[in-house]
Amino acid sequence: MTSSIEQIRHSFAHLLAAAIGELYPGAKNTIGPAIENGFYYDFEFPAGKDGKSAAPSDKDFVAIEKAMRKILADWQKKSVKFEETVASPAEAKKRFADNPYKLELIDDIIKKGEEVTLYQSGDFIDLCRGGHADVADMKADAFKIDRVAGAYWRGDEKNTMLTRIYGLAFSSKAELEAYEKQIEEAKKRDHKKLGRELGLFVFSDLVGAGLPLWTPKGTMIRNLLDEYVWSMRREHGYERVTIPHITKKALYETSGHWKKYADDLFKIKSREGHEYALKPMNCPHHTQIFASEPRSYRDMPQRYCETTAVYRDEQSGELSGLSRVLGFSQDDAHVFCRENQLEQEIFIIWDIIDRFYKTFGFDDIQVRFSRHDPTQIEKYLGTEDVWKKAESAIRSLLEKRGVAAIDGLGEAAFYGPKIDFIARDSLGRTLQVATIQLDFNMPERFGLECTNEKGLKEQIVMIHCAIMGSIERFMATLLEHTGGNLPLWLAPIQVKIAPVRESNHERARELGTLLAQAGLRVDADTSDTGFGKKVREAKDQKIPYTIVIGDKDMEKGVVTLESRDRGKIGEMKAEDVVDMLVKEVEDKK
Amino acid sequence: MTSSIEQIRHSFAHLLAAAIGELYPGAKNTIGPAIENGFYYDFEFPAGKDGKSAAPSDKDFVAIEKAMRKILADWQKKSVKFEETVASPAEAKKRFADNPYKLELIDDIIKKGEEVTLYQSGDFIDLCRGGHADVADMKADAFKIDRVAGAYWRGDEKNTMLTRIYGLAFSSKAELEAYEKQIEEAKKRDHKKLGRELGLFVFSDLVGAGLPLWTPKGTMIRNLLDEYVWSMRREHGYERVTIPHITKKALYETSGHWKKYADDLFKIKSREGHEYALKPMNCPHHTQIFASEPRSYRDMPQRYCETTAVYRDEQSGELSGLSRVLGFSQDDAHVFCRENQLEQEIFIIWDIIDRFYKTFGFDDIQVRFSRHDPTQIEKYLGTEDVWKKAESAIRSLLEKRGVAAIDGLGEAAFYGPKIDFIARDSLGRTLQVATIQLDFNMPERFGLECTNEKGLKEQIVMIHCAIMGSIERFMATLLEHTGGNLPLWLAPIQVKIAPVRESNHERARELGTLLAQAGLRVDADTSDTGFGKKVREAKDQKIPYTIVIGDKDMEKGVVTLESRDRGKIGEMKAEDVVDMLVKEVEDKK
Repeated sequence: MTSSIEQIRHSFAHLLAAAIGELYPGAKNTIGPAIENGFYYDFEFPAGKDGKSAAPSDKDFVAIEKAMRKILADWQKKSVKFEETVASPAEAKKRFADNPYKLELIDDIIKKGEEVTLYQSGDFIDLCRGGHADVADMKADAFKIDRVAGAYWRGDEKNTMLTRIYGLAFSSKAELEAYEKQIEEAKKRDHKKLGRELGLFVFSDLVGAGLPLWTPKGTMIRNLLDEYVWSMRREHGYERVTIPHITKKALYETSGHWKKYADDLFKIKSREGHEYALKPMNCPHHTQIFASEPRSYRDMPQRYCETTAVYRDEQSGELSGLSRVLGFSQDDAHVFCRENQLEQEIFIIWDIIDRFYKTFGFDDIQVRFSRHDPTQIEKYLGTEDVWKKAESAIRSLLEKRGVAAIDGLGEAAFYGPKIDFIARDSLGRTLQVATIQLDFNMPERFGLECTNEKGLKEQIVMIHCAIMGSIERFMATLLEHTGGNLPLWLAPIQVKIAPVRESNHERARELGTLLAQAGLRVDADTSDTGFGKKVREAKDQKIPYTIVIGDKDMEKGVVTLESRDRGKIGEMKAEDVVDMLVKEVEDKK
Repeated sequence: MTSSIEQIRHSFAHLLAAAIGELYPGAKNTIGPAIENGFYYDFEFPAGKDGKSAAPSDKDFVAIEKAMRKILADWQKKSVKFEETVASPAEAKKRFADNPYKLELIDDIIKKGEEVTLYQSGDFIDLCRGGHADVADMKADAFKIDRVAGAYWRGDEKNTMLTRIYGLAFSSKAELEAYEKQIEEAKKRDHKKLGRELGLFVFSDLVGAGLPLWTPKGTMIRNLLDEYVWSMRREHGYERVTIPHITKKALYETSGHWKKYADDLFKIKSREGHEYALKPMNCPHHTQIFASEPRSYRDMPQRYCETTAVYRDEQSGELSGLSRVLGFSQDDAHVFCRENQLEQEIFIIWDIIDRFYKTFGFDDIQVRFSRHDPTQIEKYLGTEDVWKKAESAIRSLLEKRGVAAIDGLGEAAFYGPKIDFIARDSLGRTLQVATIQLDFNMPERFGLECTNEKGLKEQIVMIHCAIMGSIERFMATLLEHTGGNLPLWLAPIQVKIAPVRESNHERARELGTLLAQAGLRVDADTSDTGFGKKVREAKDQKIPYTIVIGDKDMEKGVVTLESRDRGKIGEMKAEDVVDMLVKEVEDKK
């Protein structure tokens, strides 16, 4: 294969336009680029008989694909090339005389003093900058019309609304199928769908979009995750602190957030006219605890952590499930340390991040070194010298750790460089998860210091670090990564006990007590619901284990165990089930 | 004794004015009532030679008291009575011709068509409504000048600033002394002072007044208290939920809070112009979790709890320490139940309240039945019938429990009647602590219901209950109640290990590890601080136990234990110390 996937996708856009030209005479084609999973092309369709646009819809996709395949076969038979012609402005304008969109594009090209190029494939000619495939690489079974949507001409809502036709295109049928399967799986695993089905979180019209409310089950998972992070931090001398969610404007003026993030801050004016902000992050508050008393080198480092909600005034059109919200909970921590403690402290955090994500099978974690962009130093706090110092500190840590980091030029926080951790989920998608940020700037702005061994004041350094980042976003990730099949230790209900008939109810209750006493979360279902439905509910709720208890089990003094993930396990003594499950919880599996 | 304490205090105000008249010629006396612990009198003092007011200050108190005692002795020798004269307006105005304040008062009396009465004691005559003591009951050793302060004439800041002289007055010297001792103790126990000394919480000028930031030690105590409440609730089937701190205005319009509490709400307008509020309470949010799916009688009750911050736009002049803040954490819970489950659910909460407060030695808890005021039904949500129903439910519970409740007419919440719990602290002060509130109104407004056994929809009832109420206020109460001597299970550092000399450091560290492994919070102080200072720090920090380890202890294989509360305990084996302390923690003592 000689063509790149971008060339193939772009060529399919031409093919689509050619087919639409045949099927919808009078349709005006505008722009048609390659995109991530295929291509699109924007068209203006002439009004139909009833005055409404006669644009194609879902039911026309088969016909469009068929027309495309016919043209493609013709191109391939004739070994058509996408032939370039340089046209004079006048020629080009004549050719597209009845297409105002193309005329506008031609004017733009002329204004820039560039050449007007046309590309012909078979009978179809388009205004285009080039970059096409060998038609032999365009596989008739490796594309598909995906969907239609409205799109303003040139993305401007003041312009005409066009019809955008999206297509999928890959190098081979196998790749197209794999992609479609992944999409199908992603839909099934959509955290919004799973959250509803498993009863983890809800939204209320009265409370508003972007503000999830967590049910008992969802809160259980959140708290277990949070306690897990805390247990690891506590081992390393972290201490919890508590801050209010609002602050006077003055705090953010000092930190620089007021200026940098003014639009994203929820602002509050008190009845007396004082200006407050709802906190969008916690670092400035935490500095005030550190700064509340003189610190000696003996007190360093101070490691504060707190799981607390932050709020950002996002545009309502951007809100989506748990991924984009107005308020979320950060498992935040700030280490206040001396420069010579940086390595030790950052490695502690790094180890926790590794351990945490491995627990969920995120083994393939990549590291990005997010640096400032020296050509845009005005975007950041502090001087170039301070940035050089901070970045060289991180660079030497990366070397020590033997990690080949992705270069993240311009990806730094506005106060300092970061080490970002990027995970790959079970659907192969990459997502940024944890982050470690190094900050010499806040300590300077807030005058954070300690007295060193010589009795002199020494400015300290801050490390910002979150393991989950946002609990909401991590919950979304985890639900989609596991498809809702949460590991035993996290499942809100770990074991469902399903008695076969009423004569087994008492035994079911006894078993429930036995398991509960061992600390397991158990639902001994002795309701009047039928046995079959109880088992089905356990499956729907993705409960890790189901214990079936029937007359035979009682006679034999056993229970029948079934695992959500491993299928039927069979007869076991109740005590052995308890031991097995308790061990599985302890192993966080 | 024939005089009431109010009469005595009021008479001391006259005595003060008589003495000031002698000591400060030209001082104009205005108004002088009895107050809670004595009396005050407001004066205008003439300008001194330097143009500044020659008002008395602390250093003049002895002289004023001396003059008062001299006049009092004279009054008592002559068995003076406070003699009433009814004066004509003209006579009265003539007598007070050079005192514009009294003239204004006289005009007011005339306007009201009342009689102008003067009272004479010895040579001192005052405009007064009467209510005086027998001078024999005014004890020369049972009063004291307390302090001076500025006060606007008639409390209006547009008027002249006068000098208010406060005095303490009691029926006997013993009572005065007891009062002064209590005040002294309360000052020592002031939670703001203790919070600072023990390093529990801080305020920052940048964050603002009324917004405490909790240090690691303070957060430790908060979390231990919260976990204690949660452990009791969990035993009874409570489940934790999680809600955001903001909501669209619509939620509070439905709940009725927007109208009732508009001034106290922190309001937020988003960048797109949507109106939000920072939550001042949690009940409306919790209703949305209950309402998020259909509920059957099998699902009832639902018991949601959550420790979460609420915010109220208080006037800045009213903010004080942890008692009056802009934001505080409620250990809130809402039970959604059927009417026939009310008794069981309320008694569960009542038991938890009893158990919680007994833990801290609040044994003398009084109960107040806070009812609505039927003459002001417009202040409340819902109809008189609903109120009668709710209040009769509470009345019958009180009877069942055999409790004689204080009547709290008009003390109900705006949505329902309450059972309030009133504790008495170690200084004898009473304070409202927990509360149980019954609510038929929110369920109606939010349409909260379950399907009953007959398949019919049935409106449910809500119980609002908080055990600590506000963690901040409870922390203030607890600090003042214990004088900062927190019980072992709550102390941020439970044991300080003080090695006598450097040769004992290693043993101190070993002991530290031994205690820490048993789950105790220990500070094995092997710093280069001197031994005496280490022991002193333990005392200042009110650490419950100090382990001294010297050469002799090491030889004998023992440690020397000292208790903050019980003094020197003496030599013990380390393992026995661990056992004893672990048991004390478990017993929550």
